[in-house]
Amino acid sequence: MQYKIVVLRYGHRPERDKRITTHCALVARAFGAHKIIIADVKDKNIESSVKKVVKLWGGSFEIVSGIPWKKVVKEWTGEIINLTMYGLPINKIIDKIRNSSKDKLILIGAEKVPKDFYEIADYNVAITNQPHSEVAALAVFLHELYQGEELERELENAKIRVIPCKKGKKVVKFEY
Amino acid sequence: MQYKIVVLRYGHRPERDKRITTHCALVARAFGAHKIIIADVKDKNIESSVKKVVKLWGGSFEIVSGIPWKKVVKEWTGEIINLTMYGLPINKIIDKIRNSSKDKLILIGAEKVPKDFYEIADYNVAITNQPHSEVAALAVFLHELYQGEELERELENAKIRVIPCKKGKKVVKFEY
Repeated sequence: MQYKIVVLRYGHRPERDKRITTHCALVARAFGAHKIIIADVKDKNIESSVKKVVKLWGGSFEIVSGIPWKKVVKEWTGEIINLTMYGLPINKIIDKIRNSSKDKLILIGAEKVPKDFYEIADYNVAITNQPHSEVAALAVFLHELYQGEELERELENAKIRVIPCKKGKKVVKFEY
Repeated sequence: MQYKIVVLRYGHRPERDKRITTHCALVARAFGAHKIIIADVKDKNIESSVKKVVKLWGGSFEIVSGIPWKKVVKEWTGEIINLTMYGLPINKIIDKIRNSSKDKLILIGAEKVPKDFYEIADYNVAITNQPHSEVAALAVFLHELYQGEELERELENAKIRVIPCKKGKKVVKFEY
């Protein structure tokens, strides 16, 4: 895929959302996004824990925090996709999104997001019209966008890698 | 689908995991599982918040907590599926799992799970071999199991329902 995929996490509250936002970042990375931006709030702890994962498990995923969401949106030149239970069903629009060659900014919010999100988005996409989880919505969206190709990627510069197996845990560690 | 799907959440710590476990439960419900069991730890708050969602948004999803995981596993007569980044890639085994008519108990853990899980499982299934999130793993597993059919289910007895739309929020409310 030639386009860049950036996730914009809105509404992060460092104490309350620490674990959910970390899950969002790790999902973004594992399912093939290039970067996550945590809007408005600087959170060095999450930045550093995600960077540790990148260093150990490889790839070139980036994380930044504290940039105002309005600035990110204003400067974005590609498409904007808002994941929301009120949007159109993913299976109806994912082909169109996948086939456009534009970079993609994916908005995921904690509980409430500003009304503006629905307006600025090129696509409001629902992963079921039921309440559930932005972590799950992001994973299924990226999984559908990549059509499952993300599942067996090998990441460059990994210091550790899992060898899939039927029972137990098998890993290889690399020394550089 | 004729079989019953139950999610067993292991390692829940009420303070630390409140939000992640709630997301697990809502994902289980939204993606078509029938029930979630929170193992070992009684947590009335999560039970009640998930029951509120069921009452409002419909369906017959069940939640219980505080049952020892060993008891659940011992009494389970169907298959056991352990979601783990160390397992076999989902795309290699999902057809086999889908085509078997047995009920399915899906294990998802917080950080560490007992070694036993790998042994008692009929399938250890990886949703990527990268570290990410049990919320995401559960969503993608159920999405693959149902082949996307779960995305547009209508749930019975809903008091509120989303009308998918391009911009904004549209809901209908039912009075019974």
